Amino acid sequence: MRIDILTCLPRLLDSFFAHSILQRAQQGGFVEVAVHDLRDYTLDKHRRVDDYAFGGGAGMVMSIEPIARCIRALQSERSYDEVIYVTPDGERFEQRTANRLSLTRNLIILCGHYKGVDERVRELFITKEISVGDYVLSGGELPAAVISDAIIRLLPGVLNDETSALTDSFQDDLLAPPVYTRPAEFEGHTVPDILLSGHEAKINEWRFEKALERTKLRRPDLLS
Amino acid sequence: MRIDILTCLPRLLDSFFAHSILQRAQQGGFVEVAVHDLRDYTLDKHRRVDDYAFGGGAGMVMSIEPIARCIRALQSERSYDEVIYVTPDGERFEQRTANRLSLTRNLIILCGHYKGVDERVRELFITKEISVGDYVLSGGELPAAVISDAIIRLLPGVLNDETSALTDSFQDDLLAPPVYTRPAEFEGHTVPDILLSGHEAKINEWRFEKALERTKLRRPDLLS
Repeated sequence: MRIDILTCLPRLLDSFFAHSILQRAQQGGFVEVAVHDLRDYTLDKHRRVDDYAFGGGAGMVMSIEPIARCIRALQSERSYDEVIYVTPDGERFEQRTANRLSLTRNLIILCGHYKGVDERVRELFITKEISVGDYVLSGGELPAAVISDAIIRLLPGVLNDETSALTDSFQDDLLAPPVYTRPAEFEGHTVPDILLSGHEAKINEWRFEKALERTKLRRPDLLS
Repeated sequence: MRIDILTCLPRLLDSFFAHSILQRAQQGGFVEVAVHDLRDYTLDKHRRVDDYAFGGGAGMVMSIEPIARCIRALQSERSYDEVIYVTPDGERFEQRTANRLSLTRNLIILCGHYKGVDERVRELFITKEISVGDYVLSGGELPAAVISDAIIRLLPGVLNDETSALTDSFQDDLLAPPVYTRPAEFEGHTVPDILLSGHEAKINEWRFEKALERTKLRRPDLLS
């Protein structure tokens, strides 16, 4: 799988893709992540990627031309399953979106910044608009990293233990049950006895009950 | 304002806080962000921050002891408004949460990793559990960055233009209207005439109509 991220702040993503499972996923050949600086696709000497909004008002708007050049350059090299724009008014990103995108081959993710991108970018180039949540961030870089992380960890072989992603919250519409590790007692607070019993079937039953209980309490919408 | 982030992968956050408005916000004295390596709060020579889950199963669990030591060390220096744990089964993070947290003085954000933290951490130390969305990530570092970014950009003086955050999506329960910038024509695709009219009242009316239209189409739930 390949993910191309288009941004005017490429350095912002440096440390994120250089650590943890995203680094291992790239080194293991499971995914190739390329971050493109939109300034490299400008033609003026100031390398401007934004300009004032037509009609006035606060905030700058990202220009269509560098974005168009970058997307077309990438599309001339390979075909892309989706050209994603991350924006708070996009379709809500959920685990099932991550599951589905993890089955694609090539993705472009465009990061907005300032007040957003020229609307014509969305009309002419974008195939999917995604929001990671109902809140506003200073740019699309973090959401692009969030989407990449959620997808990449699902690629077969990326997680050390194949079963690890399957027991996560949301994969079966249940939140995860509580987990405990050593010490068995911390300042008088102990671990539930059942987890120390060694009785696997009973432990699984307890975990399922706790997962269901927690889901009913916190996210009853997941059960309906 | 001060935000203390507790993580076992501090390097992952380096580039994020060193760029863009988060860098400017720190340099301008609007916010102090301190990232703490939980390994610095371990007592064993291997600096282990995680261990196997009681009861078995895939994935490691973050131990209570280094987290307890770190939180208590911070709390001995100042009082904290909230000790936040980022977890997919927490309360959904929304713009109003960001608005409210931007009014606090001191926050701790604990990043989970692996299968999560020992449940007793949540019972004994955490005052608020936040989820940035219904998807699973490889760790709490990106969500901690998301929450910090959403909060910090709201602090007075951080954005260049005071009015900029007020016209964002969600601040008035409407999505933002489309925006355009030069060129007025791109390969035959033009900007709406009204935006070139110079008639401010009509432009504002058009923007409100477009924002309403887009909200009705994409997020009718925001209007109810």
